Amino acid sequence: MDDGMRDWRAYLADHQMEFLEQLKEFLRIPSISADPARLPDVDRAAAWVAARVSAAGLEHVEVLRAGRYPMVYADWLHAPGRPTVLIYGHFDVQPVDPVDAWTHPPFEPTIVDDRIYARGASDDKGNMLVPILVLEAFLRTRGALPVNVKLLFEGQEEILSPDLPAFVAAARERLSCDMVVSADGWQWSETEADLRVGLRGLCALEVTVRGPATELHSGSHGGAVANPAQALVRLLASLHGDTGRVAVPGFYDEVLPLDETARSQIAAVPFDEAAYRARVGVSALAGEPGFSPRERIGVRPTLEINGITSGYAGSGVKTIIPAQASAKITCRLVPDQAPAVIAERVRAHLAAQALPGVEVEVQVLPNAARPYLIPMDHPANQAAAEVLTELYGRAPYYTRSGGSIAILDLFRQELDAFTVIYGFGLPDENFHAPDEFLRLSGFRLGQEGYGRLLERIAEISGSL
Amino acid sequence: MDDGMRDWRAYLADHQMEFLEQLKEFLRIPSISADPARLPDVDRAAAWVAARVSAAGLEHVEVLRAGRYPMVYADWLHAPGRPTVLIYGHFDVQPVDPVDAWTHPPFEPTIVDDRIYARGASDDKGNMLVPILVLEAFLRTRGALPVNVKLLFEGQEEILSPDLPAFVAAARERLSCDMVVSADGWQWSETEADLRVGLRGLCALEVTVRGPATELHSGSHGGAVANPAQALVRLLASLHGDTGRVAVPGFYDEVLPLDETARSQIAAVPFDEAAYRARVGVSALAGEPGFSPRERIGVRPTLEINGITSGYAGSGVKTIIPAQASAKITCRLVPDQAPAVIAERVRAHLAAQALPGVEVEVQVLPNAARPYLIPMDHPANQAAAEVLTELYGRAPYYTRSGGSIAILDLFRQELDAFTVIYGFGLPDENFHAPDEFLRLSGFRLGQEGYGRLLERIAEISGSL
Repeated sequence: MDDGMRDWRAYLADHQMEFLEQLKEFLRIPSISADPARLPDVDRAAAWVAARVSAAGLEHVEVLRAGRYPMVYADWLHAPGRPTVLIYGHFDVQPVDPVDAWTHPPFEPTIVDDRIYARGASDDKGNMLVPILVLEAFLRTRGALPVNVKLLFEGQEEILSPDLPAFVAAARERLSCDMVVSADGWQWSETEADLRVGLRGLCALEVTVRGPATELHSGSHGGAVANPAQALVRLLASLHGDTGRVAVPGFYDEVLPLDETARSQIAAVPFDEAAYRARVGVSALAGEPGFSPRERIGVRPTLEINGITSGYAGSGVKTIIPAQASAKITCRLVPDQAPAVIAERVRAHLAAQALPGVEVEVQVLPNAARPYLIPMDHPANQAAAEVLTELYGRAPYYTRSGGSIAILDLFRQELDAFTVIYGFGLPDENFHAPDEFLRLSGFRLGQEGYGRLLERIAEISGSL
Repeated sequence: MDDGMRDWRAYLADHQMEFLEQLKEFLRIPSISADPARLPDVDRAAAWVAARVSAAGLEHVEVLRAGRYPMVYADWLHAPGRPTVLIYGHFDVQPVDPVDAWTHPPFEPTIVDDRIYARGASDDKGNMLVPILVLEAFLRTRGALPVNVKLLFEGQEEILSPDLPAFVAAARERLSCDMVVSADGWQWSETEADLRVGLRGLCALEVTVRGPATELHSGSHGGAVANPAQALVRLLASLHGDTGRVAVPGFYDEVLPLDETARSQIAAVPFDEAAYRARVGVSALAGEPGFSPRERIGVRPTLEINGITSGYAGSGVKTIIPAQASAKITCRLVPDQAPAVIAERVRAHLAAQALPGVEVEVQVLPNAARPYLIPMDHPANQAAAEVLTELYGRAPYYTRSGGSIAILDLFRQELDAFTVIYGFGLPDENFHAPDEFLRLSGFRLGQEGYGRLLERIAEISGSL
C-alpha cells in the first residue's frame, strides 16, 4: 500500500510540466457557452476533454449532446464491491467582456508568479483537469482505481445548464452512482479549507412594459400618454419593501428557518467586513434586516434587478416618452424554495398591478436552479472533511455559497446522490471577471487532494 | 395699393418652381445640431441661408456665432414710422434615427403627391424659407417692405438653444423690435388655422446611482451589497403618486390656476380621443386626474423619464448586481414655473432620500426653457387671427402647445417683445420622426399668409 501510494504521487510529480502544457492547450479554447458564435469552440473543448480522458485510460469515452451543447462522459467500473463516484466539472467558460480590462489576453494563458492567467483557469478548466490527471496516475501506476468512477463534464454550466435536467433524467441509468464529487468548487484560502454544504438556487424573469407604438415627443404627448419607463419603475419598486426585504407575497413562505447550529457555523467563518467593503467598493453594506451579511448571502433568498433598458441612453437630452421599458430579474433561492413556484409568485405580483395605458408582459425564463444542501454528517462529506483536515492541518469551514450550481440538485433528484463540492481554486481568482487566474499551488494540491479522497472513499465503502 | 398687392403675389406665383428647387437644395444639407460630427453641415446651412437672404435683398447679412453654433442675422430698416418685426426660424434639424424607418432618404428631398419628404421639410426649413421668399417678392416688386424687418435664424433650436440666452442678451440692441413672428409653428389642418398662444417650458436632469466599483456576481454578493438599479427604481417611483400626479414637493406651487375661459378655449379645439389613441398606439390614455387630455398636454406640467440605463441589456440572463444605474428626466413646465426652481426641487427631492450603500448624484442639465404665454388680445396676435380668418374662412383655434421653444420667453424677457407663432406646416408632418414632409400647398399658402400679415401689421402701426 505504501508503495502504491508513492507510485501515483511519483507519477504526478514526474509529469507536472507536461500537465501544465496540457492545461494551457485547454485554456486556449475560447469555449464561451453564452455566445452562440462560440459554440464550435465549446465543441472543440469537449473534443479536447474526450481525448484527454481517453489518454488517461478511462473507458466508454463519449461526447454526448444536451440541447445544442456537448457533454463528455467516460467511466472505469472495475472495482467490484467499491462505491461508484461520479466526478463532475465543466469545460465552458464565462464571457470575457470587458476585454480591455484584462492585463493578460484571456485565451493566451500566461504564467506569472506561480499563477496561470486565462479565462477558465480557475472556473473550471484547471479544477476539472485535476481529477483526470489523478485517475491517469492511478491507472498508469496501479492499473486500477480505488473506486469505480464515472466522469461527466458539461459545456453549459455558465449559462445555468438549461438542457441538463432533460439530459440527466434521460441518462439516469448511465449516470447512476453512490455519490458525486464536483470539481467546480473552491477552498477558502491558501491555508484554510472550505467544505461547501449549501448553494442557493435561482430563477429568472424578464418584465417588459409596452406603451405607445413608437417613442413619442414628450412635449406633444406628455401628460396624455402613459410613460412605460414610469410604469416599469413602479412595478420594480414594488418588489422590495422599505427595509430591503422582498415584498412579493409568499416569497419567504418555504424558506427553512435558520437554526442556531447553522448560524454558529456561519458565524465561525472569518468575515472582515471592512476588507469586504473595500474589495467591492461600497461605503456600507445593505440588505435584509435581522441577518448578518454572510447569512444574507448564504442562507437568505434575494431578488436582484440585473439590468434595466428604456428609452434614450445617449449623451445629452432627448425629450421622449419611450415606447417600452424592460428589466431582467433573478432571484437567489434557499432551501426549500422551488424556482418555478417563486418565479410564478413574482410574475403574479407584477402582473396583478393595474397600470393604465401600458401593457405589462412578464416572462419566466428557462434559467433555473434549485437550492442545494448536503447533510453535515453525510459520510462522503465527512470523508472530504478528513482529507481536507490532513491537507490543511485544520478542520475546514462549513459554508453556504450564495451562488448556484444547477446540476447539484439534479443529481440529488435524479440519481439520488449527494455531491461533495471539492475544488482547489480560491475565491479571489477572478472567476467571471477580467484577469481570471489559478494558483499553480492549488493545481498541485488538488491532485494530492483527489488522490487521497478516492482512497478514503474506498475505505468507507460500506457507509455509502 | 391694389397694383402693388398683385405685384408681390404675381412675383411669388412666377417663381414657385425656382423656390422649390431652392428648398430642395436647403433640405439636402444634413444640419443635425445634436450630432457634433454634423456641425460643419450646420455651418453650411447657415451659409446657405445668409446667401439666400442676401439674394432676396436684405441688408447687413451676417453669420454670427452662439457658442459653437451659427446664427444668421439680416435686416431691412427703411420704413420710418412703421413697426419693426423680427422674423425668427431655425435651420438646424432633428437626428434621423432610426434611418431604416424612412421610406425616402432623409437628405434627398423627394416630391410625392404635392408633398416634399425630407428631414427638416416642415420643422423648420420649409417654413423658415417662406418669409424670405415673401420679403424678396416685396423688394423686387415695390422696392420696399411694408414694415421694418429683422431676420434671426438659429442653428441650435433642436437641442433647445443652450447658447441663445447669452447671445440674445448680448445682441439686445441689434435685435430690438416691436414684435416677433416665429416661422417655427404649424396650423391645425388643411382647413383649420391654429393660433398658438402658449408653449410649455422645460427643465432636464440626470440621476446616477453608484453602487459597487464594478458589477458583481449576484450569487457571491447578492444580499450584502445594495443594488443600484433597485435604488434607482425607488427614487424614480417616488417622483409620481399613485394617481399619476407628480409627487415632488412644491412641483405645482407656481402653476397658474386654469380659468374657465382657458378651459373653454381648450375644449373648443377638436379632439378625437379614439383617433388619437389609434395614432399613438395605446389602448387607454393616462395622466393627472381632474384634467382632460388636451389640458394635461397644454396647460399642466409633467415629469417624464426619457431613458433608464443599468446593468445587463443583452439577450438571456446575466446574474449581476449592476455597478450603477442612471436615468434621464425632463419636466414640461407651464406658467409660472421657472425651470431652475423646478429642477432644483426635483433634485432636492431625489437627493433627500437616504439609500444605504449607494451614492446618488443628481445633475441639473443646462437644457431649459421657460413656459410662454401671449395675451389673447395682443394686437399682433389679433392681426394674425384676422389674416388666418381670411385665409381659412373661419376663426383660428387658440391653442396651447405641449412642446417648448426656448427662444420665445427670451424675446419677451430680453427684447420686451411678444411672439406670434405663425407657420404653415401641419402637425401630422412627422417632424422629429421618420418620413418628415411638408405639404407644398402649405408652402404656397404660407407665402400668401406672410405677405398679408406684414401688410396688416403696417396698418396697426400705432397699437404695437
